[in-house]
Amino acid sequence: MLDFDFQRPTRYIFGRGKETEVAKVLHEYNVSNVLIVYGKSSAKKTGLLGRVQTSCRDFLINYETLGGVQANPRDDLVYTGINICKEKKIDFILAVGGGSVIDTAKAIAIGAFYEGDFFDFYLKKEIPKKALPIGVVLTIPASGSEGSVSSVIQKEIDGVVIKQGFAHDLLIPKFAILNPELTYSLPAYQTACGIVDMMAHVMERYFTNTKNVSLTDRLCEGVLQSIIENTEYLIRDPYDYDARANIMFAGTLAHNNILGLGREQDWATHHLEHQLSALYDIAHGAGLAIMFPAWMEYTLEHNVMRFCQFAHRVFGIDIDFENPSITATEGIRVLRAFFYKIGMPLSFSDIGAKKEDIPKLLDMLNIDNHTEGNFVVLKRQDCENIYRIASQYEHNKHRMI
Amino acid sequence: MLDFDFQRPTRYIFGRGKETEVAKVLHEYNVSNVLIVYGKSSAKKTGLLGRVQTSCRDFLINYETLGGVQANPRDDLVYTGINICKEKKIDFILAVGGGSVIDTAKAIAIGAFYEGDFFDFYLKKEIPKKALPIGVVLTIPASGSEGSVSSVIQKEIDGVVIKQGFAHDLLIPKFAILNPELTYSLPAYQTACGIVDMMAHVMERYFTNTKNVSLTDRLCEGVLQSIIENTEYLIRDPYDYDARANIMFAGTLAHNNILGLGREQDWATHHLEHQLSALYDIAHGAGLAIMFPAWMEYTLEHNVMRFCQFAHRVFGIDIDFENPSITATEGIRVLRAFFYKIGMPLSFSDIGAKKEDIPKLLDMLNIDNHTEGNFVVLKRQDCENIYRIASQYEHNKHRMI
Repeated sequence: MLDFDFQRPTRYIFGRGKETEVAKVLHEYNVSNVLIVYGKSSAKKTGLLGRVQTSCRDFLINYETLGGVQANPRDDLVYTGINICKEKKIDFILAVGGGSVIDTAKAIAIGAFYEGDFFDFYLKKEIPKKALPIGVVLTIPASGSEGSVSSVIQKEIDGVVIKQGFAHDLLIPKFAILNPELTYSLPAYQTACGIVDMMAHVMERYFTNTKNVSLTDRLCEGVLQSIIENTEYLIRDPYDYDARANIMFAGTLAHNNILGLGREQDWATHHLEHQLSALYDIAHGAGLAIMFPAWMEYTLEHNVMRFCQFAHRVFGIDIDFENPSITATEGIRVLRAFFYKIGMPLSFSDIGAKKEDIPKLLDMLNIDNHTEGNFVVLKRQDCENIYRIASQYEHNKHRMI
Repeated sequence: MLDFDFQRPTRYIFGRGKETEVAKVLHEYNVSNVLIVYGKSSAKKTGLLGRVQTSCRDFLINYETLGGVQANPRDDLVYTGINICKEKKIDFILAVGGGSVIDTAKAIAIGAFYEGDFFDFYLKKEIPKKALPIGVVLTIPASGSEGSVSSVIQKEIDGVVIKQGFAHDLLIPKFAILNPELTYSLPAYQTACGIVDMMAHVMERYFTNTKNVSLTDRLCEGVLQSIIENTEYLIRDPYDYDARANIMFAGTLAHNNILGLGREQDWATHHLEHQLSALYDIAHGAGLAIMFPAWMEYTLEHNVMRFCQFAHRVFGIDIDFENPSITATEGIRVLRAFFYKIGMPLSFSDIGAKKEDIPKLLDMLNIDNHTEGNFVVLKRQDCENIYRIASQYEHNKHRMI
């Protein structure tokens, strides 16, 4: 096990109707002027935004609002948010939404005390020294951003779209309000994208070269098993509160890094995917459903027994002791079949992506200047090969049951 | 899943040699005068205490020391510690040891700002409003107190020994330094007692009437599996760093309550055991090895399928679908066999306890004035029956392999 220095002080307030307590909680943090950040339309349509605002008024908390955050969040709203913070003496940022909204709120939070361009932090040119505190009312269980150190923002520089992540302890939210009922109204496709995203967060940690990490192995496997079984319940009944609840908190645990403590982590697939969702403006989870199995096929030979463990412990696949790589491969097939079952794309053609764009994806990844991943360290040719696997896969040629 | 409001801000600093950084960490918390609380002898003998003191001197942090905390910690040292805090303007308490030392430090921390008897908090007569901050250098993985809200202290009142727990957010340590190497020197018996204690912390949460808590079920099962498999490694090689590391952090996770979120928990066995260790001055873990299987046998019929799940998922026992109670019973037998294998007592006679003392144990438990547990709500007769099972068990009459 590797050494670690870990602290996650986020307060989780979980249960039915908890969003109505948001201003009471803000009041506990002595908030005077809150900036409420939200997405395109659903927070407004469902009345959630109105309930949050009413709650603020009840507690005499001033609020400004910043709506319209889209999936794969861009830099422009971050600048707007930073200006509001400076002009209106904002002392707290409340994100009402999913990962894009939270990541935007995080970017605003570190930008508010910085004179330069907030994107300097994402480009690793500067380290933030101070940030506004953040709170979350979560509506989409997926990114785990409500309990994580990280944020991903997209910016176009010199005609190239850069989708870049940044991680810092200052980005950890003070609290996250988690009401599973708020996820009832999510379209099935978005629920599924979230499920893939949280599974990917676990798998990025699971595929490691660190030896003897039995405890976090078991935790990873348990969270994956629970996500999968609760997804089955959700297919039967989208209004199954407990299934929604288990999945919602699994999304938080999948990425607050308890599952990754003391382990080398990979994260190549996330970076490969970011280029896909940046170029084609698809959901991150959808891109991960395409890229993760492709990455797995490419790296399988590096450690067949780890893939065998994954197949056996997560999907209950019997081990072929004479030929464990059959078990390992079967694990990847069953993972793809699970993604297929919940309506996810599996190949480039499913999202209208083109094989010819692979050089562009590699340029966006800026792969000539670094390597990707740790489980297997990937250079340009490796990344190209993985994109190629993803582009060539045709699910009607494979067994899905 | 039940609602919850949860926050665990403890910072975990994990790895080889991390105890040498303790004063650097205290310095980050602006500590001027620290009270170092430690146990009977091992912290002194191993040089750990000296290293901590040297580290404090290097950072110009004044320290007082309070040694001699014993297993099943008593109130007397708490009073001494409170007086030192008041006289020496202590602004931080550092516990160097295991659960008894940490629990004593916690009692001192809330007592330091209270004019009355600190035990008022334990007797639920008062609620603390303020506490000194606490840090931990952990030497015995067992109690999970390094990341928990709780403390257990023993006091004799009117000739009756009261062993009483208290839980409050003010008792959560600011940081815990976890170096698995420090546990190499533990006697095998003490290592084993710690293992039983952490398993019990998981099982108190696992046996629940809350439905559809798949996520935390899986987490509980994973932590138990990891403890068990790493114990096997430790039997082969007590200096297996990774086995020590997995077990050490399992002990923390077993009790910082992530595994218990959204679930009704039981805790009857802990309370039944507290009387045993109070009366016979045995290790808490040893008492739990006797009491937990006895409690399980008594409550088995309440939910056979949950015990079946435990047997199957934790110990890999094949399910007897025609008669699941055979599987369920087998789970308890294998748990006892595991405790036996690591040198734990299994019955009253193993620790010199007497069947005739059962009425005394029941009086100490003060059972006529309340009920115990939630999975099955226990009254006096139930508790008596469970003590009786524990007193009658004779392991030489049972199969241990």
